[in-house]
Amino acid sequence: MSFVHADFMLNNETAKHLFHEYAKDLPIFDYHCHLSPEEIAKDHVFENITELWLSGDHYKWRAMRANGVSEGKVTGSASPKEKFLAWANTAENAIGNPLFHWTQLELKKYFGIEALLNSDNAEQVYNEINEKMKCDSLTARKFIQESNVEFIGTTDSPLDSLEFHEKIAEDDSFDVTVIPAFRPDEYFQLKKHTVKKLEEACEQKASSYKIFIKLLETRVDYFDKHGSVLSDHGLNELVYTETTSEEIERIYRKILEDQVLTVIERNQWITRLLVDLGCMYAKRDWVMQIHFGAVRNAHTQLFTEYGADAGTDSIADQSYLAENLNCLLDALHKKEALPKMILYNLNPEYNAIVASTAANFQSNEQGIKSKVQFGSGWWFNDTEKGILRQLETLSDHGMLMHFVGMITDSRSFISYTRHDYFRRILCNYVGEQVELGKFPKEESLLKKLIQNICYFNAKAYFEPNRSQ
Amino acid sequence: MSFVHADFMLNNETAKHLFHEYAKDLPIFDYHCHLSPEEIAKDHVFENITELWLSGDHYKWRAMRANGVSEGKVTGSASPKEKFLAWANTAENAIGNPLFHWTQLELKKYFGIEALLNSDNAEQVYNEINEKMKCDSLTARKFIQESNVEFIGTTDSPLDSLEFHEKIAEDDSFDVTVIPAFRPDEYFQLKKHTVKKLEEACEQKASSYKIFIKLLETRVDYFDKHGSVLSDHGLNELVYTETTSEEIERIYRKILEDQVLTVIERNQWITRLLVDLGCMYAKRDWVMQIHFGAVRNAHTQLFTEYGADAGTDSIADQSYLAENLNCLLDALHKKEALPKMILYNLNPEYNAIVASTAANFQSNEQGIKSKVQFGSGWWFNDTEKGILRQLETLSDHGMLMHFVGMITDSRSFISYTRHDYFRRILCNYVGEQVELGKFPKEESLLKKLIQNICYFNAKAYFEPNRSQ
Amino acid sequence: MSFVHADFMLNNETAKHLFHEYAKDLPIFDYHCHLSPEEIAKDHVFENITELWLSGDHYKWRAMRANGVSEGKVTGSASPKEKFLAWANTAENAIGNPLFHWTQLELKKYFGIEALLNSDNAEQVYNEINEKMKCDSLTARKFIQESNVEFIGTTDSPLDSLEFHEKIAEDDSFDVTVIPAFRPDEYFQLKKHTVKKLEEACEQKASSYKIFIKLLETRVDYFDKHGSVLSDHGLNELVYTETTSEEIERIYRKILEDQVLTVIERNQWITRLLVDLGCMYAKRDWVMQIHFGAVRNAHTQLFTEYGADAGTDSIADQSYLAENLNCLLDALHKKEALPKMILYNLNPEYNAIVASTAANFQSNEQGIKSKVQFGSGWWFNDTEKGILRQLETLSDHGMLMHFVGMITDSRSFISYTRHDYFRRILCNYVGEQVELGKFPKEESLLKKLIQNICYFNAKAYFEPNRSQ
Repeated sequence: MSFVHADFMLNNETAKHLFHEYAKDLPIFDYHCHLSPEEIAKDHVFENITELWLSGDHYKWRAMRANGVSEGKVTGSASPKEKFLAWANTAENAIGNPLFHWTQLELKKYFGIEALLNSDNAEQVYNEINEKMKCDSLTARKFIQESNVEFIGTTDSPLDSLEFHEKIAEDDSFDVTVIPAFRPDEYFQLKKHTVKKLEEACEQKASSYKIFIKLLETRVDYFDKHGSVLSDHGLNELVYTETTSEEIERIYRKILEDQVLTVIERNQWITRLLVDLGCMYAKRDWVMQIHFGAVRNAHTQLFTEYGADAGTDSIADQSYLAENLNCLLDALHKKEALPKMILYNLNPEYNAIVASTAANFQSNEQGIKSKVQFGSGWWFNDTEKGILRQLETLSDHGMLMHFVGMITDSRSFISYTRHDYFRRILCNYVGEQVELGKFPKEESLLKKLIQNICYFNAKAYFEPNRSQ
Repeated sequence: MSFVHADFMLNNETAKHLFHEYAKDLPIFDYHCHLSPEEIAKDHVFENITELWLSGDHYKWRAMRANGVSEGKVTGSASPKEKFLAWANTAENAIGNPLFHWTQLELKKYFGIEALLNSDNAEQVYNEINEKMKCDSLTARKFIQESNVEFIGTTDSPLDSLEFHEKIAEDDSFDVTVIPAFRPDEYFQLKKHTVKKLEEACEQKASSYKIFIKLLETRVDYFDKHGSVLSDHGLNELVYTETTSEEIERIYRKILEDQVLTVIERNQWITRLLVDLGCMYAKRDWVMQIHFGAVRNAHTQLFTEYGADAGTDSIADQSYLAENLNCLLDALHKKEALPKMILYNLNPEYNAIVASTAANFQSNEQGIKSKVQFGSGWWFNDTEKGILRQLETLSDHGMLMHFVGMITDSRSFISYTRHDYFRRILCNYVGEQVELGKFPKEESLLKKLIQNICYFNAKAYFEPNRSQ
Repeated sequence: MSFVHADFMLNNETAKHLFHEYAKDLPIFDYHCHLSPEEIAKDHVFENITELWLSGDHYKWRAMRANGVSEGKVTGSASPKEKFLAWANTAENAIGNPLFHWTQLELKKYFGIEALLNSDNAEQVYNEINEKMKCDSLTARKFIQESNVEFIGTTDSPLDSLEFHEKIAEDDSFDVTVIPAFRPDEYFQLKKHTVKKLEEACEQKASSYKIFIKLLETRVDYFDKHGSVLSDHGLNELVYTETTSEEIERIYRKILEDQVLTVIERNQWITRLLVDLGCMYAKRDWVMQIHFGAVRNAHTQLFTEYGADAGTDSIADQSYLAENLNCLLDALHKKEALPKMILYNLNPEYNAIVASTAANFQSNEQGIKSKVQFGSGWWFNDTEKGILRQLETLSDHGMLMHFVGMITDSRSFISYTRHDYFRRILCNYVGEQVELGKFPKEESLLKKLIQNICYFNAKAYFEPNRSQ
């Protein structure tokens, strides 16, 4: 039997039933990923499996380094084949790491390969996949369509022209919804030249914070007109420090004068921007995503040589997260501008804080179910254990029934198997609870639970008008 | 079969044996709760199930909000029936949340209802329970007596007259021990007017800290004379900063003059008060409870409209907990005044710190077994997973055999099923360890373990003279 | 059946197969412990089981105190027999604590005793063991040899003469490799008199930091010549604060003048020393061990009366661990001097930070597999749950296949059963994954995984030249 088989990760009868009956055939609603809209618009053709699999996947790079592979074969100038062989040896030894499962899931789903990838079969697999990619002309869109994807939320810079999103929307031959997400990270560590670019794009001087924030709002509007319903924020630390209007103008002037901000000023800036953007999102009924808690680019040499996303990011801790997060949500609520929000924390030790804080701010008169969401296991938590931790913590503090579910968060066109993986883990977990008598063996309730989390909740949360 | 059945949560044969033989029939020794002594003294009659179940239960309110219920049906002016129906729909969708189990346990135990509460049967259940409450005249005392409760520790303000405790003690028709616990939280965030009230109650001016603390001690004595053997402290953060006698007098004067304390002064005040009170407790052989780590009243609007305990409290983090907690225990020990103590932390990530710190201070010449206790899973940890975490962490760092066990910590007269729930989880855990060969299959040892934790340890800890 | 039996802790067929086929007979490569080289060199004879078991074991002392045993029978003047009886009663009640398993494993392995130690059989067991120790002349070396130990890494002060290591190396009758580890903790909280002793040993004045660090390097060389390949560092908190050469000289002068350092200066000193020592280790291809996160000597009275290691140490938390740890590793890497490193954290909540940070710094051109290691569960984590947590977190963030595995970290000659215990837990875990279909059922891969972790990885990591 193939390692990845029909009942992979499903270790009880209820789980098998739930997965095969209710979960596996639902469309994929992938509201957060890092796919290139250009590659979707142009229906990118991949040179070979190394480009598709290894050219940007820093998860794999980390594993290769831990396997003793020299940098040349990781991010360096080795040939595609050399790199693939180095990866195959790594995959073989990655037993226990999520990459081991992901690799086999992707090999099976997209290329029909059932053997465990290893040094012995690496060359043969390399040739076989490359052949198949050519013969079946496996392009970006082909992978998406084969994966039964209905909705894709990409991640985009505020000044992006969104031309590729326009093209995709206009193209009748491709009926997957692809919407942009507004990700203004560069404005949180603002530099003069970033203001310049904003001014150019908006054809207006941003001489005060008041004008600056209005210019940013025109970009939110631009995204809104292009069908966007969500934003995304990547913060190292979740801070909260209040400012007056005078102070924020003073800080803004310091930025324009290229002065260095103090830690307090930096936190004031981040807080103010988050709150002001949050208000814009609330007004437009958008969803605000916040990802926080990463140490980024920790390895100076690799960052200098390669740039960001080189695979040297890790999990952070911080002080007084609970107080900061509560104050942020309360500040937005006091302005009657708490948008729908999804919180993703990288440090799993903060799960209970995030889930219990989200539960403080669910009250709303629009009937939105679990308005503030504790997001699915992010990055290093996108593993079986991380997924289970999130499900369990959410269950303890909130309503599992209303969880908006899984996302790939991926740069790769063949990461959709992570939804399959998630659904298996979810069904196995729920099945286990049922068989232990902790969840009731009531078909309609279980069906609703599984289908809601796998598909319907996200649809209702992001497209409340369409899904009703 | 009913969802809640004889072997609910018991998934191995040893567990079933242990629960039915040794655990289930033991009396309940509920040393910490928030029941109203007045309602016990007056044997309160409940209007309807909404009053009994929903009028003060902020656990349920959080779930209702997360279910999209509008505030009017949560804390607002909706009718009892409307509120119950909104709760029923929430309960139906709360699968996975501890409320799902608690609800069904309470329905079964107190009202004989076996169906899963949901929107379809909500109205019928509402009528059925209200009918039954009237027919069987289910009063406060009736619920307590039906639950086989032997001991209740309420939570009381230092200036409480304790008149209702007196009445209960004098009433021969009710033989449950109901003692007050001294909870002086308001003195930790001391305001001038609180001093005033203390002065009035004691008929003496508290012109210095030295006098102030003596007046507080008269209240400890008052509680002691009313049979109290325990205190309780709710701290947001566990701090430790030392003071001299001069400093504490200076800080006290600032308080009397309505001046704002600095963070350091505030921490000095809290530390000094904890240590001085700890000495009083030690002298009287009381148990000192410390609950710490909550963010309280995070939602300004709900706090403003409703007040405290509105269901917008969550889990906190803090800096240098381990150092602070060790210093506090050491400071008390250095004064030869470390009382018996139970530590409850809200953030489960601190379990290992609390359990390993408690283990630093167990040495004593009175033969008290596990003098400093790592308390049972508190508030958001009072779930199956939270209970297991506490049992497992305590096992790793201390002596499970001497754990003083479960409490309801509840405002409701029908929360006693939480003891039943705890006992099932405990027996299931122990049974599992036995069946995996990790605990020995030795009847007398297992019997002692279960009975100690469910009843005898608490009795020996709180009533050392009675239980010997 | 004996509580400890052939398949103890092995609860699935794959686990039994893996343990009995591949794990149990491998030699023990115990690269970090606190055994006395003098006792090995002199082949110490133990007076009785109390000396062997209880004279220095602060794990047992903590449990005894939590069992209500008075201090006289813990660290005090009670007779060996009284102490043993007090311990037996504690052991009986320690069900769930790792000591319960360790005790029975040691009784079985070294003395053939299968009964559960308790108050009833305590006296008989006491006599039986003492008898056996005399009859079979069970000495320090006898215990080591019976345990199939191949390599021992002790923990030694930088000024140690290493005479006992020399004697052991010269002694042909004892073929276990016993090497010293360089543990310069006293130089991290440096006092004038410690510099004095270094100067005397090196016969040179350390008038500047530059000279001081060179003198320390002569001691590293001395250890290197005595076969050492590793160092060890015990830090309460993992800090990182940079210094210039001028600043470090200024701080050094303050130390020589017995001035108190500020917190920042203290952190600068620790950081500088760690980095400079790290460079020395890298140059010699040593392994650098860092243990961090303990609150030590928390109980003033016991520390005053007994000294360090009295059993009143516990788990610490700190601020910004992730940032500090990343900066430290990056600082070493920027100097091209990141040595092989093993990181041990006491607070299990930091597992994900440590494992994910280690993964940032694996890149190397020497082909070292997992150069920066997340070390095995340390101290309070050396329990079944702690071991599993480490295995699971390492799996999620790195390569389980390359983990250098278990150590005793012990002061006792009969703690080698902890390797047996670890191997059982490892095999049970891996077996479980296989039986759930999460790890492939591929014999050669599983064999490699188990054997690598139990023995071969450590050998290759510490003796790269011998093991190739």
